[in-house]
Parts: sequence; structure tokens; C-alpha cells
Amino acid sequence: MAGADGEVLGVEDWLTPFSIQSVSKVFSLALALAGGDSLWARVGREPSGNPFNSLVQLENEDGIPRNPFINAGALVVTDRLLTLTGDARGAVLELLRAESGNPSIDFDPDVARSEAARGDRNAAPAHFMAGYGNLENPVGQVLEHYFWQCSIAMSCRDLAAAGLFPARHGLRGDGSRLLDRGTAKRINSIMLTCGAYDAAGEFAFRVGLPGKSGVGGGILAVVPGRCTLCVWSPALDRHGNSVAGVDALDRFTTRTGLSVF
Amino acid sequence: MAGADGEVLGVEDWLTPFSIQSVSKVFSLALALAGGDSLWARVGREPSGNPFNSLVQLENEDGIPRNPFINAGALVVTDRLLTLTGDARGAVLELLRAESGNPSIDFDPDVARSEAARGDRNAAPAHFMAGYGNLENPVGQVLEHYFWQCSIAMSCRDLAAAGLFPARHGLRGDGSRLLDRGTAKRINSIMLTCGAYDAAGEFAFRVGLPGKSGVGGGILAVVPGRCTLCVWSPALDRHGNSVAGVDALDRFTTRTGLSVF
Amino acid sequence: MAGADGEVLGVEDWLTPFSIQSVSKVFSLALALAGGDSLWARVGREPSGNPFNSLVQLENEDGIPRNPFINAGALVVTDRLLTLTGDARGAVLELLRAESGNPSIDFDPDVARSEAARGDRNAAPAHFMAGYGNLENPVGQVLEHYFWQCSIAMSCRDLAAAGLFPARHGLRGDGSRLLDRGTAKRINSIMLTCGAYDAAGEFAFRVGLPGKSGVGGGILAVVPGRCTLCVWSPALDRHGNSVAGVDALDRFTTRTGLSVF
Amino acid sequence: MAGADGEVLGVEDWLTPFSIQSVSKVFSLALALAGGDSLWARVGREPSGNPFNSLVQLENEDGIPRNPFINAGALVVTDRLLTLTGDARGAVLELLRAESGNPSIDFDPDVARSEAARGDRNAAPAHFMAGYGNLENPVGQVLEHYFWQCSIAMSCRDLAAAGLFPARHGLRGDGSRLLDRGTAKRINSIMLTCGAYDAAGEFAFRVGLPGKSGVGGGILAVVPGRCTLCVWSPALDRHGNSVAGVDALDRFTTRTGLSVF
Repeated sequence: MAGADGEVLGVEDWLTPFSIQSVSKVFSLALALAGGDSLWARVGREPSGNPFNSLVQLENEDGIPRNPFINAGALVVTDRLLTLTGDARGAVLELLRAESGNPSIDFDPDVARSEAARGDRNAAPAHFMAGYGNLENPVGQVLEHYFWQCSIAMSCRDLAAAGLFPARHGLRGDGSRLLDRGTAKRINSIMLTCGAYDAAGEFAFRVGLPGKSGVGGGILAVVPGRCTLCVWSPALDRHGNSVAGVDALDRFTTRTGLSVF
Repeated sequence: MAGADGEVLGVEDWLTPFSIQSVSKVFSLALALAGGDSLWARVGREPSGNPFNSLVQLENEDGIPRNPFINAGALVVTDRLLTLTGDARGAVLELLRAESGNPSIDFDPDVARSEAARGDRNAAPAHFMAGYGNLENPVGQVLEHYFWQCSIAMSCRDLAAAGLFPARHGLRGDGSRLLDRGTAKRINSIMLTCGAYDAAGEFAFRVGLPGKSGVGGGILAVVPGRCTLCVWSPALDRHGNSVAGVDALDRFTTRTGLSVF
Repeated sequence: MAGADGEVLGVEDWLTPFSIQSVSKVFSLALALAGGDSLWARVGREPSGNPFNSLVQLENEDGIPRNPFINAGALVVTDRLLTLTGDARGAVLELLRAESGNPSIDFDPDVARSEAARGDRNAAPAHFMAGYGNLENPVGQVLEHYFWQCSIAMSCRDLAAAGLFPARHGLRGDGSRLLDRGTAKRINSIMLTCGAYDAAGEFAFRVGLPGKSGVGGGILAVVPGRCTLCVWSPALDRHGNSVAGVDALDRFTTRTGLSVF
Repeated sequence: MAGADGEVLGVEDWLTPFSIQSVSKVFSLALALAGGDSLWARVGREPSGNPFNSLVQLENEDGIPRNPFINAGALVVTDRLLTLTGDARGAVLELLRAESGNPSIDFDPDVARSEAARGDRNAAPAHFMAGYGNLENPVGQVLEHYFWQCSIAMSCRDLAAAGLFPARHGLRGDGSRLLDRGTAKRINSIMLTCGAYDAAGEFAFRVGLPGKSGVGGGILAVVPGRCTLCVWSPALDRHGNSVAGVDALDRFTTRTGLSVF
């Protein structure tokens, strides 16, 4: 847990790095939105009601992904960030290092290469969107940055600290503003409605907090105005969310009453 | 606006009754859940990602509706309430009268009969679910109670007051408990993720509050622990939500910062 | 087998009546088309690629069923025939009696009532289409005629004889014309592409003849210009087609070379 | 028109080469099936009911394309042929040259390169199937052979002559057997049920012959046992079939009675 004031607390393996995978999408989205809201012409903000790698709605909706947290949407975000910065994966890494205060956080090249080697499930929507003109950069380059961004390894401690900006209504750790208040609120909103794949409703129902899960077993949750929580446990349910992680967050909000509802 | 302490404030036509339509689903859901949570075996709690009367997911998911606020789900809730009480529409009306303190609230028979006459779009999912064994009462009877429940006419003032129980974490106006705290939290959660049809993500993004809209142009929104807001304006967007109503709530949370995010 | 000249041959239980179920759709379609081709504005002629009772495409295509042989399409055909004749089920029965030369063929009231009692899966698409304005008669009446039409009991001998008109390019047994040559050709075409539910491609691939199956275990197949074949065996595959029936027809066309291909 | 005896007749631009595009799928399928029927474990034979480049069913059916004539299915066929021959595009070209008797038929490199440059719509399903383990060769290589195979330019005369083998029940022009009789029959069957994209039912209804269309405006149709017809006219309907081509074939079968029905 990281308080809005920056204080961190933890138990068990909270200092052990793990692969953050899709939790990285919160950070790439924040950086892409910091560059303006033109992104919303290229990606929606509705729950998809479908698994994270589904192509069905992408096809029915002409290459516009439902939201920035399904894989197709995250590829559009990475593409936008690549256009804005020239180095999407580097921008995400830099933000995570700065906000966590840990300059040794890094990519895991083995994970990144392994993802790229098994990358067909992401290459399919990327080419599909490119076919609809919804990618600005070459497909291969977008995929590369996406796989590296997902490979970043960091601990619960560092991820909770790095994720404080939406809890602080857009402020970074040094007090400067990463996002205006409205955009920070909206990132929380998208985390709540779309952050746990096609179990987002269940997550909201049980936990009642904005959150983003990754298939590495990590989940980052936000208590707006107060703190963040980061949990990690590798066993996943069929939706791709950490079983013990969701359970821990469920118990936390039940006992503390600290849900948004 | 109704404060958690029961104080009410309003402007413009706030005392004019209108047809609450789908906003009634919040109250039938609360009454059905007050009778136990066996309901969740028969209806899900995920955003559907589809229009309110879509049959696609119902078919793919063997007659289990995605959530209690799409029409198919609301029919299951009404069916459950019919089994629990023998008079689903009467139970909803009684709750609305008691919580608003206005015993003159009533059904609009013309609206109910007109809905029944044009009821094929609701009869289709009802029969479909019956074919899957997911209705306990005769299809015709379930539809009848559903149409009457939706026809209830009441004002913004009365609807804001009647809807305070989720803002009061489950307590009724007289201090007795309608729902335990966890169930009240979950109703707020479902309102946030599923309350505005297939624009629930957009509503969460713009307004940032649990809310339920109806095609009569009304919207009930909840600020947990604090108050409710009820707005009414008949012109609807293509998703079935009041255009001016969403806009008013958007401005309210932007100016006051009173969103859950 | 019935030759185009009316000669009939058979083995085993070929004189035992069974419930013709969906095979009746060939006859209602013929009668509806004998009344003009305005039917095609209300039903398509494409394979659906989906199970016989699927509502997905019906929804995506605004209440216009894919073809006259899925249940939704057959309901539109029955509705059209009801408008044309005032007695859809009676018209089908009369045609079957006349063409088979067997006036004792009749409805099976037990089957019809049983279908009606379990009729929710057909009531759903009927109401759905009514909601789109694609039924001319009351939903209950259309369903009633449809269930009775499907309940007709007759033998392989009689069904093969009654089904000769598409093999005779539209001529009835008495030499009068039921359908013009082009319409008869088109009924054969629809039987080939849509006659075996979502296994129509497989049926065409294995058997290579226009055919229509029913869940009573019967299949009527047409060798244009030559003869009809009727087989009956109750065990069904997962698509609803008679396992032994398809196998028998497969062997017949393989040994005789009498497929259309 | 090419008779089963090899005689050819034609009018208008029948000697002008055009891009055969998807008509090439008939030839790659024949060559793949000449290598054994293990292909059918990797591709179905049902009409898809969806546009040629749809990914919806591919996703619902775990990477197994509905039939060999939608793009995804044709990619599996090309992949199979690549495994069998080491040179899929070369094998198709060689067959077309031999059967037409015209050794000057060739690829159009400009067309092939242009297809590859705009190849995202085909890369998407290729990667998708690779993700399900349904491609044996590298995605890039399969796509390359597919684009080149589609780029082959030839005239109506040559295409009608080259396509005689299914009309001759599997025999090549020199009397040797390319396919056994059953396989030839089945290629005709698939052409009838799946050869005209999602308008296959309409094509069967109007024309009543096995046929395969291409977006270059060409259509090859087969009258089993008798002859082939090849038409070419570039203007396409919304399904991707030649408007004048379908109309010409419709008139031909209506006037001659030479449909399979």
C-alpha cells in the first residue's frame, strides 16, 4: 500500500519484482493522454463484455477498440505514444522509475523476446487495425514497443508508489502535474469499468475500486484521494485475474469500508 | 437532490411526475436481493457491451442475462420478486411510496397497457429465457408485472428521496435496514458499470457516479454516503439516455468534485 | 424412393408414419411462393452458418431471417401462408394428402400440443420479428399453425411421393403446375444450401443433393429431373440431422453417382 | 465456355488476361486435396454466412476457418500446399499452365507486391490462426505465396479450360487423374455452397451452378459432366462478386436449363 503522501507499507513478497504485463497499460494511457485527448477518436471507453484478445467487436466497430485496456486498445495507445515520444517503451519505463523512486527498474529482455516469439495473438488485431487505418506506425514497431512495455519487472512496493498519480488526482510524486484532475478521474473510471478484462463487473462488485490486473498476477488498485494497493500472486482465474489478489482486495475493502461505493 | 439526512432540494420541473421506466429496476433489484442472493445464479453482473434489448449474449450464455439492468436481466429480477412476494409490481410501488413519503405515487395504466401492446421486444427474451428454464413464473405474468413496474410515474423529488437507501449504505428512511452494507455497495457497483445501457462506460467516464437511466428521460445518481441526484429531460441519445440529464450530472460532478473517482 | 413418373419403392419401415417436423417447411415454402415472390422481401436465401434457432443474425439483420428453413424464416413463411389462405396448416396438409395420394395423412394433436407447451424457443424469434414488424398475423396464431404443420405424421413412402414436385420442375402429380420452373429450381437450391441446418455444407459435401431434414429423423432429398428419396431414422447428430439417414443418402449417391455434382 | 472435351468458345474480351484473385483458390484446393484429405482437420466446409474476411467465426471456432474459400481458409490451404510442395504459388501456376495449354500464363508482380503492401487484412487472420497453431509455415511465407497465387493473370478462355477438371469428375486434360471422383464432386459442392462469399446462397438461387468468384471480376462456373463457363467484368456488388458476371450466368442457366437443379 502506498499513501497519497508517499508512505509505503507491505507484507510478504512485496519487494520481489514480477512481470507487470497489462498493468503497464495504465501508465502508457496516462502518458498518451498527457499528450492530449485526440486519442479518444481512435479508441472507445466502454467495457467490451468480451475476453481481452477478442476480435469480434473490433470487426463490428470498424477497427476502433472498445477501450484502452483490451489488447487492441492498448496497441493503439502504444502507437499514439510512439508518435508522441518516438520511444513508447522508454517513456513508460522512465515514468515508472521516476514515480517509484527506483532507477533500477528495467525491462526483462527474456520475457519481451518470448512474448514477441508467441506474439501472433497480438499481431492479429494490430494488422486488423492497420487494415482500418487505425495505426500510425509500422505494425512490427508498435508490437515491439508493446511487448517490451509489458515485460517491465517491478515489485508491489514500486508499482504501488508509481501508481499514486490517479489517487493524487493527477499529481506526480514531486508535486508537478502529470494529468489534469478531469483526466485523472477518467483514468480511474476506465480502470473501474474496464480494468479486469471481461470480469470488470465482478471486480467492481467484489472490490469496488478502480484497478488494473496483469497476467503476471499483479493488480494495482486505487482509492481516489487516499492511497493505492498493489497485490501479486501468480495463479490466475479463467479471466486472467489473480485469484488470491482479487480475494485480498475484496477482504481489504470489506473490512475497511474503503471502496468507492 | 436528496441528502442522506432526507433533506430535498430542486429546481425547474422537479415536482412534475414522469414515467420512471428502467429506473424502477434499481428498486426491484433491491427488493429481490433483500430476499437473498440466490438471484446471482440466474443473472450475471458484467457490463454487456451491447444495447439493452440485445439477445446475442443471452444466446451465447445459455439464457443467463449479463446483468440485472438489461431488459432480460430485469425480467429475471421481476420473476424472482414475483416468487418472493406474489406481487412484484405492488412491492416496488410500496417501496417507492414509503421511501419518498408520497402515498399518491401510482402506476400509469395507459403507459402500462401501451407497453404491453408493443411488448414483443420484451416477450422475445422472456420466452427465450423460459426456453432455458430461467423463469419460474408464466411468461405472460412476468411481462405484465414488468410493464406495470416500469409505468410508475413520479417526480424528481420523490425519486431522489426514494433512492437514498444505496447512498445510506442500505438503510431506509425510517432507519431500518433494507439491505446489508455489502449488498448496498454492490448495487452501487452495478449501477456504475451497467446503469446506462451500452453507454455505461461513457457515463462513468463523464459523470463518475453510480446511476440508472430510463427511457422516460429520468436518471437517478448516487453519491455514496452523501446524497442522490435525480434529473429528468425527455430527449434521449441513441443509447437511450437523457442528453440534458447526463450533461447536467457531468457538470455537477465536474464543478463539485463529488464523483467517486 | 419415388420416381418422377410416380413409381414408389421402399425397404424396412418405409410405410410407418413419423413426425415430419421441419420437412414440412419445403411444402409451406412452395405454397407461399405459389402465391407470389413478395415473400423474398421478408426472408433471405443465404445459409445462416448458425444453429436453427439462433437469434444472433436475426438481431443483426433487423428481424429478416436468413432463409426460409431456419425456424425464424419458417415462421415468416407460415405467416405469409396464413395471410394467403387463412389456414396455413390446412393448406400444407391438403397438399401432402393430394401429392401422396393418401387422404388419411393427418396432424398428430399430441405432438402439436406438446410442441406448443414447450414453444418458448419459437415464441422468442416470433415476438422478435413481430417487434420489427415482420409478422402480419398475431404471434400466437402463427405459432399455432407452425406447431400443427410440424406435427403432421406420414411415412417415407408418402413423403417421397408428396415431395416429387421439385424433382418434376414444379409439376404436381396430376400434371398441373404448382410452381414455375424457375421457382422449383430455386427451392432445390435453397434445400441444398440451407436444408440441413448449420450442417448444410457438410450435407452438400457428403450427399450432394438438395435435401431437407427434420428433428423427427426424416430427410427428403431430391434428384432433379429424376426422383426423390426419403429416409427415416430417429437418432440425430448434434446439428439435428438423422445420423443413419445422412449416411444412407451418402452411400446412395456415392454408389449411383446420382448427385447433382 | 469450355466443353468437357476441351473445345472452347467465347465472345468479347475472352482472350484478355485479368487478375484471377480468389478464383485461384479452386486450384490450390484441388492440389492440396490431391495430397490427401488431412486438410479437413484444419478447415471446415460450411458456408460462413459472413463476409470473406470476417474474423468472428474464426474466433468462436478456435482458429478453424469455416471453409477453404474464405480468406482464412484459403491461407490454410496455401500453407498445406507449401508443406506438400515447397512452392505453393509455383504449383498453382504450373497446374493453370498445363490445363489451359498456355505456358505464357504468369504472376503479375505489380499486383502481388501491391497486395502485400496492403496485406493487413490477410495478415490478421493468418496471425490469428498461427496463434491457434493452425499454420505449419511462417506467417510471412504463407502470405507471400497467397498474394502471388492471387496475382496470376489469365484470360476467360484459359481459365475455363484450366477449370475443366471438376466438370470432368477429376480428370485432367491429358486424361490422367488429378482427383478421385468423390473429391471432384466435393470441390463442386464447396463451390456451390461457399464460392460466392456471403452471397453463395443468392448465387446458387440465381445461377444454380458451382462457381468461384474473384475480386478481379472473374467467375468460373462448372456444369458437372458437361462444361465450364468463365465470365469477366470488373464492376463488383457489395459482396465482391461481378455484377454483370452473375447476371450473364443467371441468364445462361435460365435459357439453357443447364443448372444442377
